[in-house]
Amino acid sequence: MTLSIAHLGPPGTYAEQAALLYVNWLTKIKGLETILCPYPSIAQTLRAVAQGAAQLAVVPVENSIEGSVTMTVDTLWQLDTLQIQLALVMPIVHTLISCAQSVKTIKTVYSHPQALAQCQGWLERFLPSVQLIPTNSTTEPLQRLEQEITAGVISSQRAAQLYNLPILVNGINDYPENCTRFWVVSQDNLSVGNQPSVTKNSHTSLAFSVPANVPGALVKPLQIFARLGINLSRIESRPTKRSLGEYLFFIDVEADAREAQMQSALQQLTAYTEILKIFGSYNVLPISALEEGISS
Amino acid sequence: MTLSIAHLGPPGTYAEQAALLYVNWLTKIKGLETILCPYPSIAQTLRAVAQGAAQLAVVPVENSIEGSVTMTVDTLWQLDTLQIQLALVMPIVHTLISCAQSVKTIKTVYSHPQALAQCQGWLERFLPSVQLIPTNSTTEPLQRLEQEITAGVISSQRAAQLYNLPILVNGINDYPENCTRFWVVSQDNLSVGNQPSVTKNSHTSLAFSVPANVPGALVKPLQIFARLGINLSRIESRPTKRSLGEYLFFIDVEADAREAQMQSALQQLTAYTEILKIFGSYNVLPISALEEGISS
Repeated sequence: MTLSIAHLGPPGTYAEQAALLYVNWLTKIKGLETILCPYPSIAQTLRAVAQGAAQLAVVPVENSIEGSVTMTVDTLWQLDTLQIQLALVMPIVHTLISCAQSVKTIKTVYSHPQALAQCQGWLERFLPSVQLIPTNSTTEPLQRLEQEITAGVISSQRAAQLYNLPILVNGINDYPENCTRFWVVSQDNLSVGNQPSVTKNSHTSLAFSVPANVPGALVKPLQIFARLGINLSRIESRPTKRSLGEYLFFIDVEADAREAQMQSALQQLTAYTEILKIFGSYNVLPISALEEGISS
Repeated sequence: MTLSIAHLGPPGTYAEQAALLYVNWLTKIKGLETILCPYPSIAQTLRAVAQGAAQLAVVPVENSIEGSVTMTVDTLWQLDTLQIQLALVMPIVHTLISCAQSVKTIKTVYSHPQALAQCQGWLERFLPSVQLIPTNSTTEPLQRLEQEITAGVISSQRAAQLYNLPILVNGINDYPENCTRFWVVSQDNLSVGNQPSVTKNSHTSLAFSVPANVPGALVKPLQIFARLGINLSRIESRPTKRSLGEYLFFIDVEADAREAQMQSALQQLTAYTEILKIFGSYNVLPISALEEGISS
């Protein structure tokens, strides 16, 4: 069986980089044959798995500087059938790729809005008067650089190598601690992403809507976790899309859904939530752990 | 004194539309002279007020479909000196503006990522194979439409009139209840945005970081509000930008900061928060209330 793994394309994106390391690790550790399938948007990447066109997807869920990738959480809520198998944390180092002779001659900078936002301080300092043009991915605009010599693209070192384009400045992200968390998701019947040796997962992701907008509507679900000593590692509110001021809450907790404490929490939660969806229990790995797994 | 009011430009954006209605209302009700100042980004719009180049800014903070405008909350936290004077809720109706003969000949659709996202269902249904190109605002790409006759732009009805361009399809947003909440902000010494007749404001916005990532770190601040019967109308987490998994929490509560209950809440909050910032108390008005104020 060849596993197909969906990710945001074109090739060279950070999502592809994470997918590639994951794929190499799967091949080395599990001896599985894999194929990468780029999709033009995160929604399409996730839908490919829900519809069975791909077995797994590697999607960004959160960046340490720019926050939630809302397309990922919104689509996961809508699709309903996907389960998180693993989380990967990858350091992000942005480079300015350009065929210009120097930074001074650059008039336009293209990149994904997340990447532009993560370099806004650098851009304001060194290229205060350039035009910033958002694109669908960090790699989509690379092909135009050879024609447009006064343009630059914010992308990865790896993308520069892949497209054989020169790096003008390396490490232009405003915060050195820039990293992105990816989720590996599959349909709920597939659990290939899990490490076989690990019996207990470190995290569980879930989301819920609350029945009414009254004082304490959110506090009650959160108190359940606090009372049971379960730590929340993240909470994110998203609009229900029904009316302004109505929210869904996405929560990551540091526990496995199979633990007794969590079973109790999930049962109590049903009393204070309207719709409750569990997106799975999984481990969080730094991407370097996969690299070590491949090279060892 | 002429009040200058900053907003995201170029002219014709939804932010300008909100600013314009606010300005007309200020002129009519308060007899103030005003001037609108478009800026190329939300961050620059807010910084203009912090630096004294403009007295007020009208900025989007949340859309009922796409959620938080993160640039607004992040910049407000950084700038530290701005206070919210008023919130305005405006219905959003997107139109497809194009010089094409029919929808069938359209190959490219330009718009702000928020607008593209708010029409993604319509786009997938009626224009499944077009290229979607994100832009810095809903009006920035309008000027290219006369040359590029296979292109369309998602913008407002008002923008089509302003730029004298044809509307191909009206009301293409996926959800009819689409609306955006704007904040009117100024430096904390200016309170011109408040309605003079109202003594008590309906909402207060604040943000805080928590000292440690332990079970209940967020629940404790929220319990304070629940115990005092103060309703939270919104909670939003944003990265501290220090490291992945560290958050700031932005909270809107349904109370005036001058009320005794709120004074007590704010005092108790200091025990459980690291940094606490109060962005002001204000009323929330539907934009139609301003329109009525102008026409009456």
